[in-house]
Amino acid sequence: MSRIYVVGIGPGSFDHMTGEAVKALQDSDVIIGYTVYVDLVKEHFADKEFLTTPMTKEVDRCKLAFEQAQAGKTVSMICSGDAGVYGMAGLMYEIGIEYPDTELVIVAGVTAATGGAAVLGAPLIHDFCLISLSDLLTPWEKIEKRLLMASDADFVIVLYNPSSHKRADYLQKACDLMLRYKSPETVCGIVSQIAREGESYQVMTLQELRDTRVDMFTTVFIGNSQTKEINGKMVTPRGYRGV
Amino acid sequence: MSRIYVVGIGPGSFDHMTGEAVKALQDSDVIIGYTVYVDLVKEHFADKEFLTTPMTKEVDRCKLAFEQAQAGKTVSMICSGDAGVYGMAGLMYEIGIEYPDTELVIVAGVTAATGGAAVLGAPLIHDFCLISLSDLLTPWEKIEKRLLMASDADFVIVLYNPSSHKRADYLQKACDLMLRYKSPETVCGIVSQIAREGESYQVMTLQELRDTRVDMFTTVFIGNSQTKEINGKMVTPRGYRGV
Repeated sequence: MSRIYVVGIGPGSFDHMTGEAVKALQDSDVIIGYTVYVDLVKEHFADKEFLTTPMTKEVDRCKLAFEQAQAGKTVSMICSGDAGVYGMAGLMYEIGIEYPDTELVIVAGVTAATGGAAVLGAPLIHDFCLISLSDLLTPWEKIEKRLLMASDADFVIVLYNPSSHKRADYLQKACDLMLRYKSPETVCGIVSQIAREGESYQVMTLQELRDTRVDMFTTVFIGNSQTKEINGKMVTPRGYRGV
Repeated sequence: MSRIYVVGIGPGSFDHMTGEAVKALQDSDVIIGYTVYVDLVKEHFADKEFLTTPMTKEVDRCKLAFEQAQAGKTVSMICSGDAGVYGMAGLMYEIGIEYPDTELVIVAGVTAATGGAAVLGAPLIHDFCLISLSDLLTPWEKIEKRLLMASDADFVIVLYNPSSHKRADYLQKACDLMLRYKSPETVCGIVSQIAREGESYQVMTLQELRDTRVDMFTTVFIGNSQTKEINGKMVTPRGYRGV
């Protein structure tokens, strides 16, 4: 039986990979991924064969991985962050139905929510949810309902894919929805280029976030009613009953 | 200025630590944590000084860390999973107000949600939320509202602290709430002892989960309306518009 590792390489730097992820890549003959992610790991695994496909070609990338495995190679399919959080692990299982002789091994990694949280301080200490603002495969009505209900239930909210060229005003739309239930003074934070060159972060109110432009390399955090700013960091207490 | 690393060591095995976490522990004079977590890393950092405090003594543990740092030592405070997800990072910032000369560096790790997801397959490919069923510091009404709204909004839901001796029926109560909006056939999964000896998982329906007893070392996953079982694994598609 051939084997494909589906590996989360963490938010960016080699140091953010787990030991298990490093071992999976070392154990592989071929490493496959979106061009940008392959460039992040290439220098550390110079003796491997690398194959890339562009963004939006995810189905092709999966099939390529299974074909390489069927040719007798051990394959790693890499994703930034965690392979199981808006990553390739799901599609690999779906397409894998056609390749029953190949075993999938999912290797967890640090996703942008937890990697970004470490930069901002401690925003995710209490119940939180992840919502992607990309409506490419999800109807906007569904995203809207999630933003409203998560705000009403006082979750900390992390937004993935907060913006793109086509969706320049989506973060503002999302903030307007969240403002129906969350105070404009709610403590929020944004982190760009997590664990990569040019990493930066900013703590602000929800009202200020509404008027902030972010790019697609930014992860956005909206606090719950208890979240506070401590020495410039974003910190959510572990409950509602004091320290 | 003295430094304390607040380090997520991942779900269990040494291999699940990131390179950054290993370096932080290597750079430390003292490693502090709850006894069980210290035992997980001890053999790999044999030359370090180890200090432990029991469960529920989190405030004492934080103060101990700051006192050690003030005595001139470099300190690592370790947590299982990610230090920023129901972990010690928040309390360290809160107590750190009294120790302005000590810098905190948060080191992200693989939390039970993503570590457990890798064992189950790919349950977290789409929007999800984490909810702790512990009502020690959070009113049950708040937890109940989150369970209902997250279900109504069709989030994948991950339950932390699903059970304890005092809260033996909490998972059943939570399932009854989720069943108001989610189908009894919703694909669910449980993972025990993630990345530790005796790791096991099971995929089942929400109706079956309702009648399953779990312990405090179990993480529980409830799918969204699209989640399916593929070859015994729990897989959530990346959207609502087909592959």
